[in-house]
Amino acid sequence: MQTVAIVGVGLIGGSFALALRKAGFSGRILGISSPATLREALSRKVIDAAPPEDEALADADVIYLAQPISRILSFLENLDTRLKPGALVTDAGSTKSAIVAKGAGMKRGTFLGGHPMAGKHLRGVSAADPDLFVGRTYFLTPTVADQMERPAEKDFATWLARIGAHPVIIGAEEHDRLVAMTSHLPQLLSTALAGLISETLPAERAQQGAGPGLHDMTRLAGSSWEIWADILSTNSSAVDAALAQYIEELQRMRSRLGSTGLKLEFEYASRLLLLLRKPS
Amino acid sequence: MQTVAIVGVGLIGGSFALALRKAGFSGRILGISSPATLREALSRKVIDAAPPEDEALADADVIYLAQPISRILSFLENLDTRLKPGALVTDAGSTKSAIVAKGAGMKRGTFLGGHPMAGKHLRGVSAADPDLFVGRTYFLTPTVADQMERPAEKDFATWLARIGAHPVIIGAEEHDRLVAMTSHLPQLLSTALAGLISETLPAERAQQGAGPGLHDMTRLAGSSWEIWADILSTNSSAVDAALAQYIEELQRMRSRLGSTGLKLEFEYASRLLLLLRKPS
Repeated sequence: MQTVAIVGVGLIGGSFALALRKAGFSGRILGISSPATLREALSRKVIDAAPPEDEALADADVIYLAQPISRILSFLENLDTRLKPGALVTDAGSTKSAIVAKGAGMKRGTFLGGHPMAGKHLRGVSAADPDLFVGRTYFLTPTVADQMERPAEKDFATWLARIGAHPVIIGAEEHDRLVAMTSHLPQLLSTALAGLISETLPAERAQQGAGPGLHDMTRLAGSSWEIWADILSTNSSAVDAALAQYIEELQRMRSRLGSTGLKLEFEYASRLLLLLRKPS
Repeated sequence: MQTVAIVGVGLIGGSFALALRKAGFSGRILGISSPATLREALSRKVIDAAPPEDEALADADVIYLAQPISRILSFLENLDTRLKPGALVTDAGSTKSAIVAKGAGMKRGTFLGGHPMAGKHLRGVSAADPDLFVGRTYFLTPTVADQMERPAEKDFATWLARIGAHPVIIGAEEHDRLVAMTSHLPQLLSTALAGLISETLPAERAQQGAGPGLHDMTRLAGSSWEIWADILSTNSSAVDAALAQYIEELQRMRSRLGSTGLKLEFEYASRLLLLLRKPS
């Protein structure tokens, strides 16, 4: 890995560039993004150069796609013929099946799906942070047998470990079912709770009745639809299944409210917290 | 208000005592609690004295019940005859209908239900904090016409304002429906989410897939069943109705996942956050 092109130099792309540099990467880091973002990324020394797109793509050994999912999908359409032969294309999109399906047909390059479980409330290159990936799971979704044994993929995974991430190999569909449960479901539960309270309670009563628990449980409801539109549309069947399972869980709770109580449910649920507090 | 007896000198009862003192209350504060708690409360100067229970009850102008709900209910059984005539009995229980129904029949004393929307993860008198009520809603549920015009009730509400709380008058049943939505529903959603994830995902995958959103949304799942058993059993019909409404909201979401998307739901939900950030 000598030359890396970051496509979409926002929070994730910019943080990946800064993290590589901090970990000792001595090659070139090129940026492909909007003119305003490139100016800011150059002035903050997040990237080394911003050559014309075709030139950057033809030079890079690794192309790191860090745009929103819908733009990753369209960028992949005509990418293969513009690559240096043998280049590794990877991405940081939050869902993997649709992206991996698009990336799988490459001939000049090879594609390796990725998803860092890292983020912040702030967006854009100005929020980029070299430590964003430290201690975080970094999912990789190879699609070819023994793909992770190839030199380019091995080198990339080594750099992920150097920036402090924990690479985890997983199938794209298993990934999407997993994050439907651990990320997309929590988002929708928060949105639904905030929506229901807005809808059913007078504003003053909602303010008076809100304790710290409600604040916790509705924080995610402030997430931007722009990001979630892409996530939900590329993972709707797994998200729908997760919602259906969750509704069953709530129906079970309702049936036990009046009679035996929820003692076991409370004890069982608190076990997850012990698990989540342990380092993975 | 000259002599206050705090029954149950834990986090809430102890904080109320410390808050009164900080706000300039110069009367006596008596404690009724377990021997170990009374020793600790005396050594921390949270209370002034711990006379025998009958003596404390006969002396106090205000009896402040800060035990768990089930113990407030049993304490109210034979309280009236032990009171100084004209004493005000009030409580800090998280549900109001059942408690208010028990308190309503008093002859020597009068009863005023209360519920401070304040708390901490820590429990016990060692966690008591004179600023616990600052900026917090303090619900009061009078049951008699013009009850808040009586001198003892007015005096008590004045002290609530002095300790920094915002007294809010509300009917006991409206209170219980409100907190079913703003407090009890969020608790059960968190318990259900943590339970579902424990149940359906291998431990390692749950750890790998957990981001900050899941941590937020499962924090409440660590709450102790002992407290929630009382809350849910004294508010089961309002909680059941809140769960049913929430399930409908999730079903609506499911029906829109594939087609029109959830743009309006996201926008609508984020309005609640703006509201909750404003001071009430």
